[in-house]
Amino acid sequence: MAETPLFERIALIGIGLIGSSIARVVKRDGLAGHLVVCTRSDETLAKARALELGDSYTTDPAAAATGADLVVIAAPLGAYVAIAEAIGPVLRAGAIVTDVGSTKCSAIRDIQPHLAEGVHLVPGHPVAGTEHSGPEAGFDTLFEGRYCILTPPPGTDEAAVERVTELWRRAGSMVDRMDPEHHDQVLAITSHLPHLIAYTIVGTATELEEHLQQEVIKYSASGFRDFTRIAASDPVMWRDVFLKNRDAVLEVLARFSEDLTALQRAIRHGQGDLLEDHFTRTRAIRRDVIELHQAGTFKATEPEEE
Amino acid sequence: MAETPLFERIALIGIGLIGSSIARVVKRDGLAGHLVVCTRSDETLAKARALELGDSYTTDPAAAATGADLVVIAAPLGAYVAIAEAIGPVLRAGAIVTDVGSTKCSAIRDIQPHLAEGVHLVPGHPVAGTEHSGPEAGFDTLFEGRYCILTPPPGTDEAAVERVTELWRRAGSMVDRMDPEHHDQVLAITSHLPHLIAYTIVGTATELEEHLQQEVIKYSASGFRDFTRIAASDPVMWRDVFLKNRDAVLEVLARFSEDLTALQRAIRHGQGDLLEDHFTRTRAIRRDVIELHQAGTFKATEPEEE
Repeated sequence: MAETPLFERIALIGIGLIGSSIARVVKRDGLAGHLVVCTRSDETLAKARALELGDSYTTDPAAAATGADLVVIAAPLGAYVAIAEAIGPVLRAGAIVTDVGSTKCSAIRDIQPHLAEGVHLVPGHPVAGTEHSGPEAGFDTLFEGRYCILTPPPGTDEAAVERVTELWRRAGSMVDRMDPEHHDQVLAITSHLPHLIAYTIVGTATELEEHLQQEVIKYSASGFRDFTRIAASDPVMWRDVFLKNRDAVLEVLARFSEDLTALQRAIRHGQGDLLEDHFTRTRAIRRDVIELHQAGTFKATEPEEE
Repeated sequence: MAETPLFERIALIGIGLIGSSIARVVKRDGLAGHLVVCTRSDETLAKARALELGDSYTTDPAAAATGADLVVIAAPLGAYVAIAEAIGPVLRAGAIVTDVGSTKCSAIRDIQPHLAEGVHLVPGHPVAGTEHSGPEAGFDTLFEGRYCILTPPPGTDEAAVERVTELWRRAGSMVDRMDPEHHDQVLAITSHLPHLIAYTIVGTATELEEHLQQEVIKYSASGFRDFTRIAASDPVMWRDVFLKNRDAVLEVLARFSEDLTALQRAIRHGQGDLLEDHFTRTRAIRRDVIELHQAGTFKATEPEEE
């Protein structure tokens, strides 16, 4: 256990579900000589302290980043510019800045301009989560068996990318690299659109008359319940995802709406063949998903993804 | 074990996931003096025979229904008229006809006119299922802890309703009664719309370029995977659900589309407050669902619902 830690000083900015899970991994495996936890709200910081998630605590990002060789931004995407402005001037040469946000073009756009030369930006996105939020929601196995996608801009220092990769490997993740634009397009389909749809359908249900709403809840096992889980995810985080990945989300949403309109038309005009054809094609994707992930087992034993 | 069975002769017409699960319950608990299994296809009937699901087997609904005191229609909704036409003339006085279809107005519309006076129609809908189909997919605990909704038309013989209720209680279900129109409206929201949406979004993904589609499958854990499960449900069954519950589905789909358009507009115009408000409201429904069902536990230990 006298092994040198992976990083001398890690500054963790944001201590919600993802941030606190990283803190638990860092602590469990001794990955940092010192872990400083930073969050904007006094209340959340007090929770982090009570949970003993770090070695020191502050609400000041600049204080947290001073002397750090790794800064992990785990705050909502809408806070990135302010955080980057605060930490940019104090970062030491050779420091690495990474993040865990769900949209990568915006992360680069919002952080990069504030970093001095010699500071390495290695954007990341752990494809993991649950519908729960806050420092108490994290756990140290959240990232096990999950993908973490890194999107370093061209020319990023390889040694820096490798050190961030190693952090995620220690967390149990499979690390992939991707072009940031491509990442945002793929995630718009696999994650952002499904969340938007789930938020919409559950929202539609909240506007029903009271007695109907109670029955919707009672009989939710018939399909609706899965959507309520997804639609319980953190509102601020998701607000920012949609604002920051606007173009990719609107593009995939347009495709979805066209397809939904076609099915709606088929229902209205009684075109059973068209419906059956469509419903048969979608089964093939499920088979591929199961083959790749053994989804059934996965589901029963692992916390739900977001 | 010398107890009198609940029914002398049960005719089970349709032996897919639901039908074969009923057969397994009937056999396990000795609920029928004789169980005759009927399905249209020789191939499916051979599977049912190999699984020893019944006491006798036929592809002729009239032969199955002759002498039965209970007929359970567990075929796709689109087959109801033909089945009712076939069994109507042979049913004995006092016989009970029930079904397991997901839309109840159409069930009554399609079956009732073909039944003689003295034959009792007790439409039913077990709110249970998985994404798997066929006689081999059934299991005798499918209905445990699930609701079964009965929608007997006004004036239905109470003793007949009570006997069907008892069958479902033996299967482990909680039995509710509901007006058929109301049932179709509630299920349009809790089940039919979620399935339509899931079919749509997975269909949208099937039309992506090949390399993008592979990545969508790879990163499906980020939300998409839940939709693939729902969209793997039986295509013929769901084709019929949408055709048979057309008006209620189109009505709730219109509400959904309006709400989605409002969110789309908020994304386009950067209206973060509106998004956050919406995403916060949907959390309340999840809390209600969890309180009512203890959804987490349910999910981990029970097969997935449809």
